[in-house]
Amino acid sequence: MYAVILAGGGGTRLWPLSRPDRPKPFLPLLGEQTLLRATFERVLPAVAGPGDVAVVVDRRHAALVRDELPELPAENVLAEPAGRNTAAAIALAAVALPRAAGDVMVVLPADHLVADERAFRAVLGAAATVAAAPDRPLVTLGIAPTGPETGYGYVVAGELRPEAGAHAVRRFVEKPPLDAARALLAGPDPVAWNAGIFAWRRDAILAALDATAPDIAAAVRGGVAGGPAALEAAYATVRATSIDYAVLEPASLLGRVAMVRADVGWSDLGSWVAIRDALVARAAADGEPTGTVGAGPRRDVGSEGTLVLAASRLVVTLGLRDAIVVDTPDALLVCAADRSQEVRAIAEELARALEEDG
Amino acid sequence: MYAVILAGGGGTRLWPLSRPDRPKPFLPLLGEQTLLRATFERVLPAVAGPGDVAVVVDRRHAALVRDELPELPAENVLAEPAGRNTAAAIALAAVALPRAAGDVMVVLPADHLVADERAFRAVLGAAATVAAAPDRPLVTLGIAPTGPETGYGYVVAGELRPEAGAHAVRRFVEKPPLDAARALLAGPDPVAWNAGIFAWRRDAILAALDATAPDIAAAVRGGVAGGPAALEAAYATVRATSIDYAVLEPASLLGRVAMVRADVGWSDLGSWVAIRDALVARAAADGEPTGTVGAGPRRDVGSEGTLVLAASRLVVTLGLRDAIVVDTPDALLVCAADRSQEVRAIAEELARALEEDG
Repeated sequence: MYAVILAGGGGTRLWPLSRPDRPKPFLPLLGEQTLLRATFERVLPAVAGPGDVAVVVDRRHAALVRDELPELPAENVLAEPAGRNTAAAIALAAVALPRAAGDVMVVLPADHLVADERAFRAVLGAAATVAAAPDRPLVTLGIAPTGPETGYGYVVAGELRPEAGAHAVRRFVEKPPLDAARALLAGPDPVAWNAGIFAWRRDAILAALDATAPDIAAAVRGGVAGGPAALEAAYATVRATSIDYAVLEPASLLGRVAMVRADVGWSDLGSWVAIRDALVARAAADGEPTGTVGAGPRRDVGSEGTLVLAASRLVVTLGLRDAIVVDTPDALLVCAADRSQEVRAIAEELARALEEDG
Repeated sequence: MYAVILAGGGGTRLWPLSRPDRPKPFLPLLGEQTLLRATFERVLPAVAGPGDVAVVVDRRHAALVRDELPELPAENVLAEPAGRNTAAAIALAAVALPRAAGDVMVVLPADHLVADERAFRAVLGAAATVAAAPDRPLVTLGIAPTGPETGYGYVVAGELRPEAGAHAVRRFVEKPPLDAARALLAGPDPVAWNAGIFAWRRDAILAALDATAPDIAAAVRGGVAGGPAALEAAYATVRATSIDYAVLEPASLLGRVAMVRADVGWSDLGSWVAIRDALVARAAADGEPTGTVGAGPRRDVGSEGTLVLAASRLVVTLGLRDAIVVDTPDALLVCAADRSQEVRAIAEELARALEEDG
């Protein structure tokens, strides 16, 4: 078993902390460690050693990966000429890393939270066992839903597989409207959130890519075979799409996808309110005050449900309810927690305005 | 008639913008002008010229006054060796400024808002007329209350005086609890807020000081007569108290105080919520959006009742309700508008902590 960590993504949803030159995986959002480092340490005990961990990253951030993970062999940092979403990134790992056809690759985003790491590694082991079964399924981890979230994709499970706790996957549902999410939870089939964490044999994912996304598979194979200039040319035109769209959705219709349930305290940390919730949950578990959570020099009087990320300046908060305060040297965000999904649009608009100005 | 502007006060209530080296009168809180400059320009058309305006100020801030009011003759900046509240400041102006006994002095705080300046000057003229009456009363401006505010002192009026719109003052009530404020408004006597704006003959205020605060009057007289070192010595021990406590309350019991009503769009700008309210009222009057008001580089989506004072950094607000955001180079305040009265205590606590550290 070897692990491939995906450290791509622009991360405008966590503006103003996440910026193009230091996006989300490279931020210590939950404490001392960057999310990438935490992901690395989370998966390391599940493999033989650092040589069995690889990171796929936009080449602009490859140096950040080497700084964060000095244990990683240099050849295990796979630098992409540009970000092209997860299908190309996973294809690159499957093609470029010199592994046996039957080796099981687990794929993990670099920027998620897993509160229960021991349970997580047990689930990874179970997923690898399923992936190694004779039918070589593509295995996705299914997160037990806590409510009708509209920000996640859903996995609809079908019949049980022979392996303990594993299901066949009937279909995927992309981020549904609220009514549809409620209907899914109330429906007859077990459903789970799609965490974007996968396990599969190397030969299985390569075959699936060749079958359902042959353009991406061919571009990446050609780029890897031809060397840096060829890879650059391939990435200039390769289709940017997710592995879910490109491979898992069509493969699920052919009965080629399995799901293993994961009840591990997972969050995609996909917005400021998710960061707030993760830090509040941790504070509650540690028996610490939960009215305000965060980092940096701060002083609060009487706030509730409030995240304060201070930088170098003192941040004083007073009587806030469900607010997000993120301070950086050149920009400050203050927002209602239930509006934090809109940060992405604002950050992108600001970036466009900056481009037009400059 | 001559005007004395009181530019003292520490101003911790408007932390983090108001600081010991640049307190509230020297901040452009409502736009381009500092509050001191706005006060000067408000009163100037009511007197013969800049020679008839004086400013009493802590000597640490005398240079700021000269910068702000270059028209002012140098001898009209009365520098106090230390801040000793309004009784000493008014005594200093009454003793030190070489005016005739019958000249009418109007006294104005440097840090208030008056929205209707024309009406304000008409009221000042009316107050000066009352002050010049044969009984030489001490005249206070009474602001028409808009509700049972607990943050202001109240003036309880008695019988009408012969001058149009003037009342005798029956008594003063210091900042009352809510129940008492309601009872005052519902009571039989006309009541008003005490704005700390006064008019009186020079001989009348000197006589009143000699009668009800002889220690303060003697200390200031001795200090002015003896020169800078004597004034410094006098201020080292002079009692720090307000003109209301020291003179107006006892004088009101002797029937020596009169009130002139002032419906002029006044605010003492005594907390961040008052600044917010003043800017919202101005925006509404100008037909501008009122969801967020403030200054500096800022971008808002969907906030209401929110004040944003940005400094050099971009401040993005999203979906806030009744919030105050004040950004400065070394400290940031984010607070619920209805808690802004508590800022003073926090600022004082921070100052103490800083002192203990340093």
